[in-house]
Amino acid sequence: MPRNILFIMYDQLRHDYLSCAGHKTLHTPHMDRLAAMGTRFTNAYVQSPVCGASRMSFYTGRYVSSHGAAWNGFPLKVGEETMGDHLRELGVDSWLIGKTHMRVDHKGMERLGISRDGLIGARVAQCGFDVWEREDGLNAEGPDGRYDPEPSPYNDYLKMQGYTGENPWHDHANAAHINGETASGWLMQHADQPANIREEDSETPWLTSRAIDFLNSPTAKQPWMAHLSFIKPHWPYIVPAPYHNMYGHNAIQPVNRDAAELENMHPVFAAFHNSPIGQAFSRDEVRDTVIPAYMGLIKQCDDQLGRLLGHLESTGRMADTMIVLTSDHGDYLGDHWLGEKDLFHAPSVKVPMIIVHPKGRKGQVVDALVESIDLAPTFIEAMGGKAPGHILEGRSLLPWLQGETPEWRDHVISEYDYSATGNRETLGVSVQDARLLMVADERYTFMHAEGGFRPMLFDRKTDPNELNDLGTRRPEIISQMYKRLNTWSRRPSQRTTRSEAEILAKGGNTGVIIGAYDEGDVSAEDMAKYRGRPT
Amino acid sequence: MPRNILFIMYDQLRHDYLSCAGHKTLHTPHMDRLAAMGTRFTNAYVQSPVCGASRMSFYTGRYVSSHGAAWNGFPLKVGEETMGDHLRELGVDSWLIGKTHMRVDHKGMERLGISRDGLIGARVAQCGFDVWEREDGLNAEGPDGRYDPEPSPYNDYLKMQGYTGENPWHDHANAAHINGETASGWLMQHADQPANIREEDSETPWLTSRAIDFLNSPTAKQPWMAHLSFIKPHWPYIVPAPYHNMYGHNAIQPVNRDAAELENMHPVFAAFHNSPIGQAFSRDEVRDTVIPAYMGLIKQCDDQLGRLLGHLESTGRMADTMIVLTSDHGDYLGDHWLGEKDLFHAPSVKVPMIIVHPKGRKGQVVDALVESIDLAPTFIEAMGGKAPGHILEGRSLLPWLQGETPEWRDHVISEYDYSATGNRETLGVSVQDARLLMVADERYTFMHAEGGFRPMLFDRKTDPNELNDLGTRRPEIISQMYKRLNTWSRRPSQRTTRSEAEILAKGGNTGVIIGAYDEGDVSAEDMAKYRGRPT
Repeated sequence: MPRNILFIMYDQLRHDYLSCAGHKTLHTPHMDRLAAMGTRFTNAYVQSPVCGASRMSFYTGRYVSSHGAAWNGFPLKVGEETMGDHLRELGVDSWLIGKTHMRVDHKGMERLGISRDGLIGARVAQCGFDVWEREDGLNAEGPDGRYDPEPSPYNDYLKMQGYTGENPWHDHANAAHINGETASGWLMQHADQPANIREEDSETPWLTSRAIDFLNSPTAKQPWMAHLSFIKPHWPYIVPAPYHNMYGHNAIQPVNRDAAELENMHPVFAAFHNSPIGQAFSRDEVRDTVIPAYMGLIKQCDDQLGRLLGHLESTGRMADTMIVLTSDHGDYLGDHWLGEKDLFHAPSVKVPMIIVHPKGRKGQVVDALVESIDLAPTFIEAMGGKAPGHILEGRSLLPWLQGETPEWRDHVISEYDYSATGNRETLGVSVQDARLLMVADERYTFMHAEGGFRPMLFDRKTDPNELNDLGTRRPEIISQMYKRLNTWSRRPSQRTTRSEAEILAKGGNTGVIIGAYDEGDVSAEDMAKYRGRPT
Repeated sequence: MPRNILFIMYDQLRHDYLSCAGHKTLHTPHMDRLAAMGTRFTNAYVQSPVCGASRMSFYTGRYVSSHGAAWNGFPLKVGEETMGDHLRELGVDSWLIGKTHMRVDHKGMERLGISRDGLIGARVAQCGFDVWEREDGLNAEGPDGRYDPEPSPYNDYLKMQGYTGENPWHDHANAAHINGETASGWLMQHADQPANIREEDSETPWLTSRAIDFLNSPTAKQPWMAHLSFIKPHWPYIVPAPYHNMYGHNAIQPVNRDAAELENMHPVFAAFHNSPIGQAFSRDEVRDTVIPAYMGLIKQCDDQLGRLLGHLESTGRMADTMIVLTSDHGDYLGDHWLGEKDLFHAPSVKVPMIIVHPKGRKGQVVDALVESIDLAPTFIEAMGGKAPGHILEGRSLLPWLQGETPEWRDHVISEYDYSATGNRETLGVSVQDARLLMVADERYTFMHAEGGFRPMLFDRKTDPNELNDLGTRRPEIISQMYKRLNTWSRRPSQRTTRSEAEILAKGGNTGVIIGAYDEGDVSAEDMAKYRGRPT
């Protein structure tokens, strides 16, 4: 049993931008080292290819439509338990170092009289974590106020280091300096410029230092789970020197797109392609400017991972800590004529997933279908608990880590709620119907769109790059996929107040006797159950 | 707008055991009077034909698989809002007088630090109601303790009246006295005996008196919603004189069953039929003994309703109070070779539903498909609020009450979780799969059973008594029913922390700019959103 769990999450890190996962020009020796020390899962899917919803699934171990926080900014409702709650029952504290993208259910807390000033309320407001450092890393500020309503300790840090302006997160960490002017990282044309900050003060080194502070603290003398959650390589795509020009255009991998994809497009696919983001990333100029910065950001992440692993090693923690490396979703980067994430092609919905268990097999590559909700039960069982199956919908990955081949699921599910995006308006669908559901098995990736649209389907065996949409052509496969989707949709996801064991125990001898006409219909045992014997 | 709402629920009252609903020998003049004063809905379905799950749907306005309290004793999870919570936001207090069959989510309350000693916790523990009197009316006591873990004010009342024994609820209200011995009402052979209690002290008059106490109290000087919730005509089937022998065998309506039903039975139907309850109610002796008592219990309910209506009238409350009369489910009473409730034939899943709105049409009969979850939004809108559609899944019935014909649903859903019953073991299905789902439209009633069983189907147009199961014979109808079931199953029932209006507002100008390459991609408006202008 490991003593601790270090749960590292990057944000928007593609599954294939690690050298151990086959990237040809981006060398990530420290991520690769973790893969060599443990198990790398090649088919890890997120429950939703968008930050907030995906993370709430990681933390709760439940599908998006089970926890309900379907998109960024949709609060996680009070009452949803997270890995922090479950691990606490095992005597393990869960610490947050970085980003969750959780929005607080203020209405729910107020209704139930729960205040953030108390320990329970503080945890409810932070996905069940205790906060070592919370920094969502999106310190944008508009006329209506800040994108992230929570304080930014990183901005406080930058100000203490002497960085100027009201929002040095933007002006320094996420902007360049050109001809004496601030050149915002919000404009991707500046992605090839160095960020206007000392490298050691940029976000990834800063958060890594905070993690090392945690590891050195008295707090970490108890067994712990620490969620070290980086904002990078998420946009704004800008990175300090020397990472900003570490990769030239020739280091960019060929784009995965085909002109044929633009013919007879699925309406939802078309809407996302035709959005400003899709249009931008369909331009080579954008890809050529952004991708080297994205790679530089990952390289910086990898270097900082090396620093962290060195610290773990020198302090003896490598031997007793389970280490997990993953991401909340990927990034299209122009593949399939799309930018960002949101849909279910591999660059968006698949993530890196490496788990090092101190007693696990080393250097394994496992192709089993993994879901992000599997981590919560994995952590609980790694710490000696039993994952409550009436609450958690994922499955422990521990057997895989030990080299076993357990009986396993044959498909995975992902969801995307685009009700709060401009694409809903473009498509003219209702808030209720602006939802997408994916079913993927070993061979096919299928997408159902509410609102009366046809499905999408890719046969990854004959079309590994997912360029040929068979959504109008393979009724038998589509029918099978709908069958799986429907069975899944009927799951009893809210029956969370009664465990299977409690249900099997059936509530005991409660004295209620139903359906007995006379004493002949009642066993002697049952007869003893009630007061007032009949004659 | 009514000043008050009186929400009367009987327990296990069949939809067709009112004279206004066509019962030929049971005269219910006071229920009929309500029907004449308002709207009687002839197709009102409960969300689950079992007490606890059904009631939690009435109170939350949400389907059973949305609130998760799927069977008796499954706690309603902390965080589920009820009509009490919604009405309180409108300044209307909701009072409980009688039964809810709610089990407290003690684990959830403890986890969130919510104590029943406080007002918030007291309401959380009582489905959002304030308690005038809570009495679930099932004071059975077995070796493992009481069926109902809450105190019984009715037993306290009986003791104060001088009734003897530790459990006068059983020994007097629900038992006869034969040859000097207590003859338990748990044995249905005693159903033809008078209960060993003065009529005015029996459960229905007692609770009616408590309701009148409420109406006379200073509390009722404010606008109120009162949930007056009777245990009767629920078993134990026993009633005091003179009701115990008011109906003879010739007053019993013909049983609705056919020998052909026992051929090629659906396995789930067969399991319920073969259970002790189904076997008992398949015996004429049981029907002949039980049904007169059941009718007597209803007659007593009707007489007490008359007493209550008289009080409302004499105090002027009839003019400003919306009155609702319904039940949580029905009772097979031997129809279809079954007893109790649980499956989806009309005697089980349909309930009486009469609504008197002071300003509504009088004497209307409406055949529209109504669900029990419609009451919560009806109450909210009757009190001038707007039902929050992201939480409540039912629809306000107000337009019908005014004589309008709104665009309306074309099918209804009901669910039944039998995981905690012996039928699960009989059928050899898992706890996960021990679930049934009904879809009914104007013509067909369809049942899906998880676990690989075929469906059941009745064509009520050609077979109004539901005697001919077409589950193997009408693939086109079954396919249509599955389509409805699947669409419903995919509803976003947990997206309760963001209203449609909030989603449409999209969170405002937050300063995040995605997909912009250069200033040409950004509107002047957006440019103003972020600090640090590019050159």
